[in-house]
Amino acid sequence: MSRIAYVNGSYVPHAQASVHIEDRGYQFSDGVYEVWAIQNSKLRDHQQHLTRLQRSLSELDIPFTHTNRSLNMILGEVIRRNRVRNGMVYLQITRGVAPRDHSWAKDIIPSIVVTAKSVDPAQAANRAKTGVSVITLADLRWKRRDIKSVSLLPNVLAKQSARDKGAFEAWLVDEEGFVTEGTSSNAWIITQDNVLVTRSVNSDILSGVTRLSLLELAKELQLKTEQRKFTIDEAKQAKEAFISSATTLAMPVVKIDKSVIGTGSPGMAAQRLREAYIAQGYV
Amino acid sequence: MSRIAYVNGSYVPHAQASVHIEDRGYQFSDGVYEVWAIQNSKLRDHQQHLTRLQRSLSELDIPFTHTNRSLNMILGEVIRRNRVRNGMVYLQITRGVAPRDHSWAKDIIPSIVVTAKSVDPAQAANRAKTGVSVITLADLRWKRRDIKSVSLLPNVLAKQSARDKGAFEAWLVDEEGFVTEGTSSNAWIITQDNVLVTRSVNSDILSGVTRLSLLELAKELQLKTEQRKFTIDEAKQAKEAFISSATTLAMPVVKIDKSVIGTGSPGMAAQRLREAYIAQGYV
Repeated sequence: MSRIAYVNGSYVPHAQASVHIEDRGYQFSDGVYEVWAIQNSKLRDHQQHLTRLQRSLSELDIPFTHTNRSLNMILGEVIRRNRVRNGMVYLQITRGVAPRDHSWAKDIIPSIVVTAKSVDPAQAANRAKTGVSVITLADLRWKRRDIKSVSLLPNVLAKQSARDKGAFEAWLVDEEGFVTEGTSSNAWIITQDNVLVTRSVNSDILSGVTRLSLLELAKELQLKTEQRKFTIDEAKQAKEAFISSATTLAMPVVKIDKSVIGTGSPGMAAQRLREAYIAQGYV
Repeated sequence: MSRIAYVNGSYVPHAQASVHIEDRGYQFSDGVYEVWAIQNSKLRDHQQHLTRLQRSLSELDIPFTHTNRSLNMILGEVIRRNRVRNGMVYLQITRGVAPRDHSWAKDIIPSIVVTAKSVDPAQAANRAKTGVSVITLADLRWKRRDIKSVSLLPNVLAKQSARDKGAFEAWLVDEEGFVTEGTSSNAWIITQDNVLVTRSVNSDILSGVTRLSLLELAKELQLKTEQRKFTIDEAKQAKEAFISSATTLAMPVVKIDKSVIGTGSPGMAAQRLREAYIAQGYV
């Protein structure tokens, strides 16, 4: 079966799915995106991603040209055509095609691309059993990380640095030594006093949808939580650490740079949150 | 005559020129670009742009898959096919097409896009006669502005803010109150003591090719120059101000925010530099 993508109104074979060279997404990274996890044929945290999408568009003054209903139909159709039961769906909306100029005419029609793919849940499950390692790098990104834009060059460079060093993710560190977040995930620690800590949201980090769901679950699991900054040193002395995102859910971190976290095995709180999040998807 | 673009080995009608939706330029702004001015059928500062291109690629670890000679042939062919005598040629090189993942396989083949267009030199000449106004905005960009990447979202947002306020360009200001550069140009002032000042280059700003050529010309014109930071306040009290880029050359600035610069008309030094730069193109 060949993959199918949605591009500006048409369902096309993935291999031929293309956008114009003067799409402002290509020339200026002038666009936003969302990634939904698909679990057992359902979109996880569906509405929360849609809400964030609309906020991102609004911050960039890109019109949302669909209704939620029509966008949902497209997402559903791409998932159906690609027969994805477990995996992810990717949506990208850019300001559209226009003769190259930094400024833009207000009547440009946004471009919309949707793809979906199957991912074997066993992959992440296996990874979660051993946990992952992260490295730390200076956070070189722009100052509006609350917008989920495709302006991801610093993120991909940092991710590649992590992979080159055999790590799964890079935690980005601000000028004061505090962890902001990962290149494509939020960062969490559990202190020796069993307090779950993750940075509070403002323009320094993306408001992770999975992050919010995990905070809700932590409440249900009666875990004490604090939304505040933490330094790399505090993280290295933590009892546990983990990352969260739509694709990794809650993924235990067992090593930060050269420091082993806790026992060097996935921590209890991270595992409970991961299991609770997955279980929620089958309700 | 229809416009022709070069895309990955083919010369195609501009309207149909496209790249794959999983080109990393589109999904991650993982690529670089250059713009050359074409004056009287010649590429201005040709070699300097090529040198900078190769540095940008190298900093992102994107292989340069052409020789200078083959790239020059492509640029020349696109200019010829579009019959551009005065205008610009745009080159974009991205890391290439790959299944979406922040990290990348080392064997991806870079994508190359080249477009060219005619621009009537009278347009900029008329603008230079009256001068332009700029506004000032906080510089929100990432910390590697020395790389000429397509990760330009903060730049286009700032440019649009300028245009929305009737200004031609925005000057970006760092946290200490110093001007870094414009959204697509370098920033210059001439002090009341007739010293030409522009910020020295490091990762805070792009090393403008036109900037370098103008510094050379300033030497020939025996203008005293200093490469150092200047504040917005210093700029507002300057005798003259101007911006430089491949498309604006040296363009007089007559207003910064609400402050009129000098007499409110284009300054002498800016005009001399502009004329000298244009004259050089006819040698």
